[in-house]
Amino acid sequence: MLYIIGLGLYDENDISIKGLRAIEDCDEVYAEFYTAMLQGSSLSAIERRIGRTVKVLGRGEIEEERIPIERASELDVALLVAGDPLVATTHTELLIDAHRRGIETRVIHSSSIISAAPGLAGLQAYKFGRIITIPFTADNYFPTSPYTNIGENLKAGSHSLVLLDIEAHRNRYMTASEGLRYLLKASEKLDDDTISGETLAVVIARAGSEKPLARADRIDVLVDEDFGDPLHCLVVPAGLHFIEAEYLVEIAGAPRAVVERMII
Amino acid sequence: MLYIIGLGLYDENDISIKGLRAIEDCDEVYAEFYTAMLQGSSLSAIERRIGRTVKVLGRGEIEEERIPIERASELDVALLVAGDPLVATTHTELLIDAHRRGIETRVIHSSSIISAAPGLAGLQAYKFGRIITIPFTADNYFPTSPYTNIGENLKAGSHSLVLLDIEAHRNRYMTASEGLRYLLKASEKLDDDTISGETLAVVIARAGSEKPLARADRIDVLVDEDFGDPLHCLVVPAGLHFIEAEYLVEIAGAPRAVVERMII
Repeated sequence: MLYIIGLGLYDENDISIKGLRAIEDCDEVYAEFYTAMLQGSSLSAIERRIGRTVKVLGRGEIEEERIPIERASELDVALLVAGDPLVATTHTELLIDAHRRGIETRVIHSSSIISAAPGLAGLQAYKFGRIITIPFTADNYFPTSPYTNIGENLKAGSHSLVLLDIEAHRNRYMTASEGLRYLLKASEKLDDDTISGETLAVVIARAGSEKPLARADRIDVLVDEDFGDPLHCLVVPAGLHFIEAEYLVEIAGAPRAVVERMII
Repeated sequence: MLYIIGLGLYDENDISIKGLRAIEDCDEVYAEFYTAMLQGSSLSAIERRIGRTVKVLGRGEIEEERIPIERASELDVALLVAGDPLVATTHTELLIDAHRRGIETRVIHSSSIISAAPGLAGLQAYKFGRIITIPFTADNYFPTSPYTNIGENLKAGSHSLVLLDIEAHRNRYMTASEGLRYLLKASEKLDDDTISGETLAVVIARAGSEKPLARADRIDVLVDEDFGDPLHCLVVPAGLHFIEAEYLVEIAGAPRAVVERMII
């Protein structure tokens, strides 16, 4: 049996009781942290919490050697992953492979930025369009599709959840300010004003922690602020319901005038 | 202090360690189950799991009498909710109200259908468009916007997560077959073939349980199948990546020919 178990959003206490119990029944416990890692935790804190030794696998050990699946043909094996499983394609591929080999699988869900961030931004989940990711750019690499995709969402009246690039192996996490700077640069490059310094944005930092940050304002104000430790993500709201607007003012510190012009 | 604590997807073991610990510190524990209820659990099972008596509040007690907030001005109070908090507007309103009264709040996240269903359908989360809800219809009430909104997603190449109406107080949950029948009827009414009996759909049932169902096929095949106990939801996929297609065939039992024509 192969269990793929979500560790949730932030630290070693975000795992569910169900996940913890499944681990107790397993012969071997693996983890992959190359698609994402818990920011508020460490391998040793996770091991203490679950009372087991965890072997962290690299990409090659999972995607080529298929260690969790090889082991699961004879034993009960747990693979721990940050967030909710299956958001990363590599987990989906493991399920397909296990199924072909006749190995039973079970997924144990947990909290995810996909559900948490809209709520922390005070925005209604069913009003979000496609999720957008802003990648790290370079001198010869500056894709404009994340910008235009947010624009598409805005035109459709849909809020955008904007995830920021992670290079977990290099301990490199894009900050909200870097993401906002990307948007301003793309706007300039495309000579397009769908998104500009005046656009309302929401920064979410450290979702799942004791003190997550939700901070809303015009992009040209936010771009110079420091939002502290990772992970950060952004939300670019479309037209607002008045309760959404109230939240952004009361909880996320947005100036009332900036938010009120967005109420529809 | 007011804690709003997610119970997660399915039963009393989907709560996180963090949620459980917060409850231990609270003077009073409330729950609201009118926006949603755990299908694999009961009040007494929840009470046994958390080792506390839980007072279930009705809509009026939360939205008008504001009982959790009134109590939280003097005590540490937990409000338990199904799924991940803040997906329901009523939780957002509680946070705004508490903030205005100077009461500290903390949200403890958990698993949610918004993240779980795309993964259980083998589809990539970032390719989903707006979430759609199909309401219970009646002789004089048949909105076609859910149908047209799925059509909009399809045209944009976005998958649709389709939630099905719940009347928790009447213990009434729309089945996947009812949802699919709605889609066929709306197609006929609008004389539109964006969605038809030949369209590929995925039924997800009992997400978070030990044996969740993922079943993919043409709508005209699925519409007559019985998917067992609630909750059900639907996914209507747009163009597929080949790994998404492989999952639908291997895990969700879709006929290869139905899925392969959707690969882009």
